[in-house]
Amino acid sequence: MPAISPLMRDTTPPPVMEARRWIAGVDFPPERPLINLSQAAPVEPPPEPLREAMATMVRTEADTHLYGPVLGLPALRAAVASRWSAAYGGRIEPADVAITPGCNLAFCAAVATLAAPGDAVMLPVPWYFNHQMWLTQTGIEVVPIPCGEGMLPDLDAARARMSPRVRAIALVSPNNPTGAEYPAALVAAFVRLARERGIALVLDETYRDFDSRAGAPHGLFADPGWRETLVHLYSFSKAYRLTGHRVGAIVADPALLAQAEKFLDTAAICAPLLGQKAALWGLENLGPWVAGERAEILRRRAAIAAGIARLPGWRLMGCGAYFAYVSHPSAEDAATLARRLVTEQSLLVLPGTMFGDPDDPARARELRIAFANADTDGIAELIARLEAATAAGLVSRGTSA
Amino acid sequence: MPAISPLMRDTTPPPVMEARRWIAGVDFPPERPLINLSQAAPVEPPPEPLREAMATMVRTEADTHLYGPVLGLPALRAAVASRWSAAYGGRIEPADVAITPGCNLAFCAAVATLAAPGDAVMLPVPWYFNHQMWLTQTGIEVVPIPCGEGMLPDLDAARARMSPRVRAIALVSPNNPTGAEYPAALVAAFVRLARERGIALVLDETYRDFDSRAGAPHGLFADPGWRETLVHLYSFSKAYRLTGHRVGAIVADPALLAQAEKFLDTAAICAPLLGQKAALWGLENLGPWVAGERAEILRRRAAIAAGIARLPGWRLMGCGAYFAYVSHPSAEDAATLARRLVTEQSLLVLPGTMFGDPDDPARARELRIAFANADTDGIAELIARLEAATAAGLVSRGTSA
Repeated sequence: MPAISPLMRDTTPPPVMEARRWIAGVDFPPERPLINLSQAAPVEPPPEPLREAMATMVRTEADTHLYGPVLGLPALRAAVASRWSAAYGGRIEPADVAITPGCNLAFCAAVATLAAPGDAVMLPVPWYFNHQMWLTQTGIEVVPIPCGEGMLPDLDAARARMSPRVRAIALVSPNNPTGAEYPAALVAAFVRLARERGIALVLDETYRDFDSRAGAPHGLFADPGWRETLVHLYSFSKAYRLTGHRVGAIVADPALLAQAEKFLDTAAICAPLLGQKAALWGLENLGPWVAGERAEILRRRAAIAAGIARLPGWRLMGCGAYFAYVSHPSAEDAATLARRLVTEQSLLVLPGTMFGDPDDPARARELRIAFANADTDGIAELIARLEAATAAGLVSRGTSA
Repeated sequence: MPAISPLMRDTTPPPVMEARRWIAGVDFPPERPLINLSQAAPVEPPPEPLREAMATMVRTEADTHLYGPVLGLPALRAAVASRWSAAYGGRIEPADVAITPGCNLAFCAAVATLAAPGDAVMLPVPWYFNHQMWLTQTGIEVVPIPCGEGMLPDLDAARARMSPRVRAIALVSPNNPTGAEYPAALVAAFVRLARERGIALVLDETYRDFDSRAGAPHGLFADPGWRETLVHLYSFSKAYRLTGHRVGAIVADPALLAQAEKFLDTAAICAPLLGQKAALWGLENLGPWVAGERAEILRRRAAIAAGIARLPGWRLMGCGAYFAYVSHPSAEDAATLARRLVTEQSLLVLPGTMFGDPDDPARARELRIAFANADTDGIAELIARLEAATAAGLVSRGTSA
């Protein structure tokens, strides 16, 4: 084959695809079927009324099949603007909103607009692996921000590691992989740090709809000067179960979006139109349904937090949205443990090493459990299997953390 | 707003969005409605049986709404492999195929896999603007290859401009914007040049289904060593009218695709599932329908070629697929002429300056007419308007080319 770019060669392969290989061809015993808690994604289709609405769009609306504007359908941009304005207590205009083919490409577009090769972007560790992968493959240095208690990024450490090369700080709240819900005051402090430097605070709120807190998770949009600093990212995939339709959003200064438009046009032309129309239908019709989904996720969250608390030597480091982030008591590193959990307990979760420098010993103590797809019975079974593994000596060769 | 990357700032804005601004708010007279020949895209939805099949997929197949594998649905990869093998007289395996969210992202993924910032990629000029925009914004130098008679890229010029920084040669055939169908021998010669250097030949065949030649447009896949050099790109958007569903493909060495998978996972996670299923349905059911579409495009092509030949001072430089690429006889530059054609003739076509260095005087003599959406009556009307413009002095201030 032709020579490969060294940047791409040095980028780690997709962890989710790697984890799929762990379970490929494994015969799980019928009495202990696989519990797959590796991916942060719905496994059920959208609710039936949305599916019916989408089928009608496909059958009867020609524009569903055609290119749309690069920055998205005007009606969806307007709906996001008005709903976000109400939800965050701020003023967001339709021109502040761009619709993207998924929130991953929203992040790529934001970073490509803000940083060039040789620049740097700050990410709390553990990080969302696709963020790190994008930075690495585009020649942008990752400046890690360590997390302290509650898996909250350390503001003083960020300040100490700041340099003129840093063009953005990227936060995810509620966080992937830790589930941590960043306090409003902490996010505001990071915005101030970014603003002092004239750089961006990229805030990925993909899991916002499952935040346990009532009301707005932060007050950033209430500051009329938010456009100076804030680049907000969102995904419609989780709330409305539209992962396969690829639709997300960026909310930012229209002048910044005019620059991001160059990237989005070149990479994508437009977000898929059916996904955009489905997202709009969801915004207009699925508010109560999403509230019910959130209540169920919060029940599951309580169940897994209680279950982990009962497990000897295990510790819940962060919990929220779709994720429990735990430390395990095994002498083995997390990657080895995760593979043994597949074969010995029919359980797929991702090791902490997939969410940071794989040589960082801290990550070797950690696992991410994407619990959202397990109902409370499933979570009970998950806890029982972790308990069995612990009792059977799977984790007995180490000392309790 | 936060500081913008200089690479993005120096990237030209999307020409199609710029052209949309030219017609925004213009009141076209009822007796002379707008003829919009600016974009290379179907304006009709897919045929009704495909729309019905898609509606059923949306209503009844849960996986339509979920994430799929990064490199695409196995059934679609297999279908591409078997059909391409037959069409090109070569051996293409399912593992050689990746499905992408549109052919633009296929190009981005290929380039990101092959070239790093500071490297270079060769493009014939005039170029497809999104190719140039991607290279510019990612810090990769464009090395232009001039085109000679028939708008065919000059192999000797490419050889003369070759350097160790060049990581790929990217060709589009049938070409956007010129319509030129590159002869098999020419494409093979470019592959040899790339192979000598250990670099890639990226061949974008988005418009392949409308090639006027019978049989395979080239013999590259018949060489069992094709994977050493060739990276083939394709779009399902044109043949099946799926532009709004974002689905394309890369055919390349599986080891190269394993590297591109990192990009595709990070940027897109997967191509939209409905688009993938629709593409598969199209491959399995729409062969005769596409053949009819091709015949119609070829009729339109003949009509526009004959029409341009009749216009005093105008010259057809290239014609094929969706495009006629013409030189105009006006003393004005193409960008000015294109804007006057909007206001004076209700006609939107793109100036050559959008497909190359805008300061290159050659581009100022050229227009791209994306004729595919005009039926033969529409093409007659187009020619009549160009004739009227010429007669009315719109182009009379210059001398005939």
